[in-house]
Amino acid sequence: MPELRKDPVVGRWVIISTERGRKPSDFSERVEMKHATFCPFCPGNEGTTPPEVLAYRPENSPVNGPGWTVRVVPNKFPALQIEGSINRRAEGLYDKMNGIGAHEVIIEGTDHHVDFADMSEEHIASILWAYRERMVDLRKDKRLRYNLVFKNHGEAAGASLEHTHTQLISTPILPKQVQEELDGSLAYWQVKERCVWCDIVEQEVADGNGKRVVLATPKFASIVPYAARFPFECWILPREHEAAFENQPADDYKELAGVLRETLQRLNLALNFPPYNLVVHTAPNRDSDHEYYHWHIEIMPKLTKVAGFEWGSGFYINPTPPEDAAAYLREVRGPAPKADGAAGSTASPEVPA
Amino acid sequence: MPELRKDPVVGRWVIISTERGRKPSDFSERVEMKHATFCPFCPGNEGTTPPEVLAYRPENSPVNGPGWTVRVVPNKFPALQIEGSINRRAEGLYDKMNGIGAHEVIIEGTDHHVDFADMSEEHIASILWAYRERMVDLRKDKRLRYNLVFKNHGEAAGASLEHTHTQLISTPILPKQVQEELDGSLAYWQVKERCVWCDIVEQEVADGNGKRVVLATPKFASIVPYAARFPFECWILPREHEAAFENQPADDYKELAGVLRETLQRLNLALNFPPYNLVVHTAPNRDSDHEYYHWHIEIMPKLTKVAGFEWGSGFYINPTPPEDAAAYLREVRGPAPKADGAAGSTASPEVPA
Repeated sequence: MPELRKDPVVGRWVIISTERGRKPSDFSERVEMKHATFCPFCPGNEGTTPPEVLAYRPENSPVNGPGWTVRVVPNKFPALQIEGSINRRAEGLYDKMNGIGAHEVIIEGTDHHVDFADMSEEHIASILWAYRERMVDLRKDKRLRYNLVFKNHGEAAGASLEHTHTQLISTPILPKQVQEELDGSLAYWQVKERCVWCDIVEQEVADGNGKRVVLATPKFASIVPYAARFPFECWILPREHEAAFENQPADDYKELAGVLRETLQRLNLALNFPPYNLVVHTAPNRDSDHEYYHWHIEIMPKLTKVAGFEWGSGFYINPTPPEDAAAYLREVRGPAPKADGAAGSTASPEVPA
Repeated sequence: MPELRKDPVVGRWVIISTERGRKPSDFSERVEMKHATFCPFCPGNEGTTPPEVLAYRPENSPVNGPGWTVRVVPNKFPALQIEGSINRRAEGLYDKMNGIGAHEVIIEGTDHHVDFADMSEEHIASILWAYRERMVDLRKDKRLRYNLVFKNHGEAAGASLEHTHTQLISTPILPKQVQEELDGSLAYWQVKERCVWCDIVEQEVADGNGKRVVLATPKFASIVPYAARFPFECWILPREHEAAFENQPADDYKELAGVLRETLQRLNLALNFPPYNLVVHTAPNRDSDHEYYHWHIEIMPKLTKVAGFEWGSGFYINPTPPEDAAAYLREVRGPAPKADGAAGSTASPEVPA
């Protein structure tokens, strides 16, 4: 019997095909490196990007020259433009405003061929710290209401450049799904006087059944959500309440980096380097410390093509039960192979039958 | 300057890249026929599908045999199951119910290779009539709250079989986007005491600027919506108020078929046979005659891969301004080439520069 499950925050129902559950080996999308001849993100090509707004580099290395380990630059083809005023206005019954905002790229490392998940925990922590530094800085611009940090990994997930990177779009409005999460979280708070996300983490991890847990550390949990829209969707949440990613205690980013790295390595191993989208869901800029919202990271492997229907209806069919997905991810064994075609990358991952 | 536009019903903001607008020739996704060796939808193979629930066929032709022109069968691999009770229940803080519902396939014709848009107006009208007959029939089942009719055209849009067909999923819940449209339409009604969709049609067509109109007939309008999420997205709406697709006056389906056919032919011509999703948005089963909702068809060409980010945030970037898309679609010339590789299919469509 298929099951209909409701997301407890936004109220979205999802069909979970509990009977003909699709296993990792049923999915074939994977990320392939094409080794582009020219890459604007590679060291030596710093002059081909707009000037950096942040870089982690030795003190004596030249700005906009090599030597950096993580580098943040404005997007050369920005979706939103930083100069100008918002100018809200009508067009008949419609509403519009100027496309003011920031669009930046976090270049995550110097090696063109390395997979994000194969970087060291320390290095991933420094990437997450760069997210935070840019978010804190952009929060000062009173025109901007939300910092949307996201990563498209692989061409099928919308990445136009293969050199590993994250994007940050800072918008003068709240993205719809953020608004829905805020509304749903507030409604739950008004009834229960508890954070719904804290309750979710408590039920998933602390209650002890753990069947949707991928891994948990003292401060973070990686779970497959109860009403996952996509097969092998994973969420990473702080176990203690915290509304905004950039307000998380500074000491916690290394532990977070470890949980993110381990989750992505397990996805790589189980699904043979799937394309994915990663989105940081955090509180709005002007309202980043409330009691009912709870930041988290959503990782959505892009394994199925059945997408346009979902876009049109908001109705999702997930062919892999979350409990099965979590079990596969818990049980994958062995070191993750490299994404760039080195030894091991084509071997079938070892997964339970 | 990019523009942020708000959908007047659901409140979704979209970034419209008005400066580097992408033209039809910038998109390369197209539907290719692979000529599968076995097709369960072809005449002669009726025994390989579940028994038909509706067929338009000569009186003397055998049920579940050849002779039909349009045939509706239950999906052999249904997402929802028709037998059983809904059994709403909790799982800790979560909510779930049994996956009860109907999942049917409308097989639109006998020719494996024909493109939906190349069928005759009369034949397309009979397909739309089949939608209506199934919707009216399924509405009688009190467990089912919504009839979701949709079409995935082309592999990139999620079609697993190339023989032209539509699906109908009848659900015990309202899909999220339907609920949002109902909520938004009701909110507008409460302020204005007018249907927002009627106002949209009035502003787009009757006010005379017509810049987002693809075509209009006395009873229907095909437009590119003001806050389109996707390049070349098109909506078809009745010009007179009507909440439910299946309540439209019976005489109107031929005119609707003509508008749908012409819209799809123009998309084929401008974009060289794009994959697309088509979704019928209609009123819920139990509440199909109210004053504030207005049925319509949404056609979403699947031209870009940047999708997962949008899934995660509800935030869309549309690289083709709706006014430009509508102008291209109004101005395409000549008969549409065939999709199946016959003469003309690889020629560049004639579009204004």
